[in-house]
Amino acid sequence: MIVVMKTASTTEHVNYIVNLLNQMGLSGWVIDGNPQKMIEVLGVNGQADRALLEDAPMVDRVLEEAKPILAASRLPGEKTLEILLGSAASIRARKLGIIAGPCSIESEGQLLEIASAVKEAGAVALRGGAFKPRTSPYSFQGHGERGLELLARAGEETGLAVVTEVMRCDHVDLVARYADVLQVGSRSMHNTHLLAAVGRQSKPILLKRGWCATLEEFLLAAEYVMLEGNRNVILCERGIRTHETYVRNTLALAIVPEIKRVSRLPIIVDPSHGTGQSHLVTPMSNAAIACGADGLLVEVHHSPPQAWTDGQQSLDLEQFRSFMKGLKAFAAAADREL
Amino acid sequence: MIVVMKTASTTEHVNYIVNLLNQMGLSGWVIDGNPQKMIEVLGVNGQADRALLEDAPMVDRVLEEAKPILAASRLPGEKTLEILLGSAASIRARKLGIIAGPCSIESEGQLLEIASAVKEAGAVALRGGAFKPRTSPYSFQGHGERGLELLARAGEETGLAVVTEVMRCDHVDLVARYADVLQVGSRSMHNTHLLAAVGRQSKPILLKRGWCATLEEFLLAAEYVMLEGNRNVILCERGIRTHETYVRNTLALAIVPEIKRVSRLPIIVDPSHGTGQSHLVTPMSNAAIACGADGLLVEVHHSPPQAWTDGQQSLDLEQFRSFMKGLKAFAAAADREL
Amino acid sequence: MIVVMKTASTTEHVNYIVNLLNQMGLSGWVIDGNPQKMIEVLGVNGQADRALLEDAPMVDRVLEEAKPILAASRLPGEKTLEILLGSAASIRARKLGIIAGPCSIESEGQLLEIASAVKEAGAVALRGGAFKPRTSPYSFQGHGERGLELLARAGEETGLAVVTEVMRCDHVDLVARYADVLQVGSRSMHNTHLLAAVGRQSKPILLKRGWCATLEEFLLAAEYVMLEGNRNVILCERGIRTHETYVRNTLALAIVPEIKRVSRLPIIVDPSHGTGQSHLVTPMSNAAIACGADGLLVEVHHSPPQAWTDGQQSLDLEQFRSFMKGLKAFAAAADREL
Amino acid sequence: MIVVMKTASTTEHVNYIVNLLNQMGLSGWVIDGNPQKMIEVLGVNGQADRALLEDAPMVDRVLEEAKPILAASRLPGEKTLEILLGSAASIRARKLGIIAGPCSIESEGQLLEIASAVKEAGAVALRGGAFKPRTSPYSFQGHGERGLELLARAGEETGLAVVTEVMRCDHVDLVARYADVLQVGSRSMHNTHLLAAVGRQSKPILLKRGWCATLEEFLLAAEYVMLEGNRNVILCERGIRTHETYVRNTLALAIVPEIKRVSRLPIIVDPSHGTGQSHLVTPMSNAAIACGADGLLVEVHHSPPQAWTDGQQSLDLEQFRSFMKGLKAFAAAADREL
Repeated sequence: MIVVMKTASTTEHVNYIVNLLNQMGLSGWVIDGNPQKMIEVLGVNGQADRALLEDAPMVDRVLEEAKPILAASRLPGEKTLEILLGSAASIRARKLGIIAGPCSIESEGQLLEIASAVKEAGAVALRGGAFKPRTSPYSFQGHGERGLELLARAGEETGLAVVTEVMRCDHVDLVARYADVLQVGSRSMHNTHLLAAVGRQSKPILLKRGWCATLEEFLLAAEYVMLEGNRNVILCERGIRTHETYVRNTLALAIVPEIKRVSRLPIIVDPSHGTGQSHLVTPMSNAAIACGADGLLVEVHHSPPQAWTDGQQSLDLEQFRSFMKGLKAFAAAADREL
Repeated sequence: MIVVMKTASTTEHVNYIVNLLNQMGLSGWVIDGNPQKMIEVLGVNGQADRALLEDAPMVDRVLEEAKPILAASRLPGEKTLEILLGSAASIRARKLGIIAGPCSIESEGQLLEIASAVKEAGAVALRGGAFKPRTSPYSFQGHGERGLELLARAGEETGLAVVTEVMRCDHVDLVARYADVLQVGSRSMHNTHLLAAVGRQSKPILLKRGWCATLEEFLLAAEYVMLEGNRNVILCERGIRTHETYVRNTLALAIVPEIKRVSRLPIIVDPSHGTGQSHLVTPMSNAAIACGADGLLVEVHHSPPQAWTDGQQSLDLEQFRSFMKGLKAFAAAADREL
Repeated sequence: MIVVMKTASTTEHVNYIVNLLNQMGLSGWVIDGNPQKMIEVLGVNGQADRALLEDAPMVDRVLEEAKPILAASRLPGEKTLEILLGSAASIRARKLGIIAGPCSIESEGQLLEIASAVKEAGAVALRGGAFKPRTSPYSFQGHGERGLELLARAGEETGLAVVTEVMRCDHVDLVARYADVLQVGSRSMHNTHLLAAVGRQSKPILLKRGWCATLEEFLLAAEYVMLEGNRNVILCERGIRTHETYVRNTLALAIVPEIKRVSRLPIIVDPSHGTGQSHLVTPMSNAAIACGADGLLVEVHHSPPQAWTDGQQSLDLEQFRSFMKGLKAFAAAADREL
Repeated sequence: MIVVMKTASTTEHVNYIVNLLNQMGLSGWVIDGNPQKMIEVLGVNGQADRALLEDAPMVDRVLEEAKPILAASRLPGEKTLEILLGSAASIRARKLGIIAGPCSIESEGQLLEIASAVKEAGAVALRGGAFKPRTSPYSFQGHGERGLELLARAGEETGLAVVTEVMRCDHVDLVARYADVLQVGSRSMHNTHLLAAVGRQSKPILLKRGWCATLEEFLLAAEYVMLEGNRNVILCERGIRTHETYVRNTLALAIVPEIKRVSRLPIIVDPSHGTGQSHLVTPMSNAAIACGADGLLVEVHHSPPQAWTDGQQSLDLEQFRSFMKGLKAFAAAADREL
């Protein structure tokens, strides 16, 4: 049970409710939400005198659910939130947001060559990893801040918004200085402190679904961000781990129309991690758009066999151009535009 | 290791090779393939004198793989097999095969009403279950042969090809008398005797992927059918079992373009079982066509809330008409036609 | 909703209830259970007048559940069913049932050597496959009836009960002529016709859990057997398919104590298929007994590297002797005996 | 490919190798390992002149594997590492380490009552959450530093070592001030920065397996810690996410004997999260010890129905006493002691 306080509630009001709970033999845990404070009721739910709580003047309402989706839910008739990716780009209404670029930022030359090509082909934003979460400590972990500098420069030169991953709470300010969009990766979807930290700044968040997260856990991760005041969350399906072996992950596209039904947040699809195979990127991107995705996150490299990371799932520049051309018909069929 | 005999090989030739294996301290197991007999080498592979086997005059070739895909593989440049669904319909080239109908055949009136509606909306075949595999023995198991009669009659009256499931070896002849296409359901994909039995008759087979089958197991199930001489196999993705709970199954659409790449067999998608939710059927059907599916298998009922089985995932007649209309744009984008 | 008829109900009584349902705008599907007939209510549940049904004189009770576990449930205080494996062996009370033998019956010599060794080491029954469900049609499918003959002979010579798999309805009589226990394999757990067919004869059934079956589906498969009158069902956990790759399957042992809690049926564990690795068979067998398993099904071969099937997961004769010795302490700790 | 430098290598030596790689058209990424520096070769592996690299005087060896297990592997004949849990307890040799306590630290009274009881029953360490990773932001997130204080005090009063979770890099020092063992939770197993941070201090680490982590990923997470110099890593199996629904997670116990075979690190089991059901904790703990686990991590609460978190999977004090008594026989059977 969760007691939602009215917006203007003070600490005193909150304490009043906590005392009321104590008198019922329960405890209260205070959630410092923005704009509304809340109190989770701890102990045996059945002991709470709901009417008494609802009657308290500074209480807005009392929720029976343990894990409500308060900020990310879609209201009846509501449209998907429009989200600006920096000053130049956006994910909004009919316009699809295609974000493309290398898995890892390797060098200035590499990044600029790829950035120019994806811009020309129609991408609205550039992706590139500076801090890399890797399975092995003996694998390249990214160029760090130098990578961020290269990314920001490539964004300026091409006019593309830039997207990159942030992996730890004490890096949020650093990454936000360089990036237009902060990515919270799959391995971090359950990192609640990081979610709250990116929620306390204003740049939009690209939140990837965890490897085996449920729909509810995915939306609750978005709640962690939104509860802090940042409503600019873009969800991203990138495949789940199953028994399948011909793909790196199983792209579970049904989550796209389901998210559109229950949530106001836009959702894009990462067909690169979602399949792990470059030859599957194009058909699965077409499918993603066909079932309602608001955009795509695609790995592109000027020379995939030489890529430091994820070469097997990267399109080369020529493939990306064909990819974008082919996508147009599916965008049109879905009543969207590139 | 598998020794493939030349087409004209006799039992004598086969015995000669088995004796040769025995002399090597190995055993041979004879596969009575059509058109080529084969011999699996049993024992320790390393003991086999491959050159000696290859030199035998009636040996075509020797395969190192334990589980080759011989009949279902796509040759370089080969097109997907065209498959006739009875006299009136087909899955071929650009034409998409939309198969629709109720989960269970309930009554003559029900079936005819649905059949007429799906025919008018553009379906090429009618599905309907007469023998039903159900999780519980306390659930309706289908009308059996009476259901087959109703199905055949509905096919005649509407001109639709009819598709229905066969569940046991000794029912194959019975079902083949009434149906244009024999479905082998997900729970039967590993039923090797049934696969061989349907392979020994000539009507086309709709083979659904097992609940947790791999791509390799799926194709090997098709090999069981094809090895007996029946090449008319249509594969069907219908979702796999994962940790996801907002859907009945996780529709794993990447198998569609992967099958198109490695196999000559057509593949269709069942968005009804693949999601278990009627509101997800349309977007996931659009996605299936967008990534290359050759058709769809869709559950339709004139009154889903009253359906004896699977009402939650069934479209009603009006929804199916809209569904077909909406599909056209995606078919066109995929360079296919309804 | 399911209407359970009193034991003495006639067809007339059943028809009376079906008519009653028709008058409510519903349909009824008759389940020819032994000893009680039942009627599943089809249509919209809410339309059924439950009181009217319960008042009918030949109705025993009305169940709201769609998929009740009627025969396999454990009553309060009830003990696990004792099951005789032929005349010489049993799974009962404190006595653990260890069933061992080769994956495939290869030859008379092979089978007798293994049978004698497992008998001497303390096994109560011999396993061996004559009809083999294989992923590939190019793999050895078993010696069929000749294998059954060899198995029965090995049973006679050693005094072991013999267990072997039956794969199709029209083989049930054949297999039951030779075997003391009929195994329904994992790939057949959802083969409802086969389940009913083995339920119509009296020899005990060893029912393996499907590759991705839930606990409920597992018990409902047992219901299919028991509904026909055969109560002698031994359940067998053999691992489920997950993302793990160092094992062939993930042995999900928690199902053992859960089955003991909710069902009256005994449950044994197959650590050979459950891991796919001979070096994991001993520790996982110890664990199975520690959490309450009533027995084990273990693959043993006199020369695993030369085994025609499953050599990687088979213990050799010496390993099996050590295995049985080591098991004693865990059996004692679990208050059981070998 | 990874170039391992000799222990005494300087930055100059490392630069020499990086230059060598550049001359081959490759790049090098330096891993600042303790005690050995390493260089990952980036680009196309085939272009590397391995002999030239091996000939360089400061190179120790060149590894072909991309993700070697260097620190956590078991050498032939090596015993499992002994790990001290503070000054009073350890996980070593025959002695099993039973760690018990509440999911969340709620209050001083609660913690002391539980701590005294688990101490008396034979536990060697106390668990208790101060920083809680929760699925929902509307759920209790732990008392933070105040919880740490209570935990440390309970440890002092009872003589138990104390174990608690650390969730973020900038909390490592704080948590290490109060705790004897730092837990890295399942949701953090892929948090590479956190792994490195706990590796840079000397207190032992309890590393829980990720929800869907493979064996390889689990060991590589340990490598992240050990590469920084901290070898005191205790692995913990706590169940994986599968399709099963009667349990919260599927306890995959085969990882215990497999880890013992391939790794020098001890492994314990968490049957509370591993099943999510208090009635399954005892049998699965017995099973864990039977297959070789070095200890257990068990949730205990003086009044589970009132527990703020995880009451359903917590033993009460009386149940824990019985649990410990019953465990003795299985410990003895496994040649271990409590």
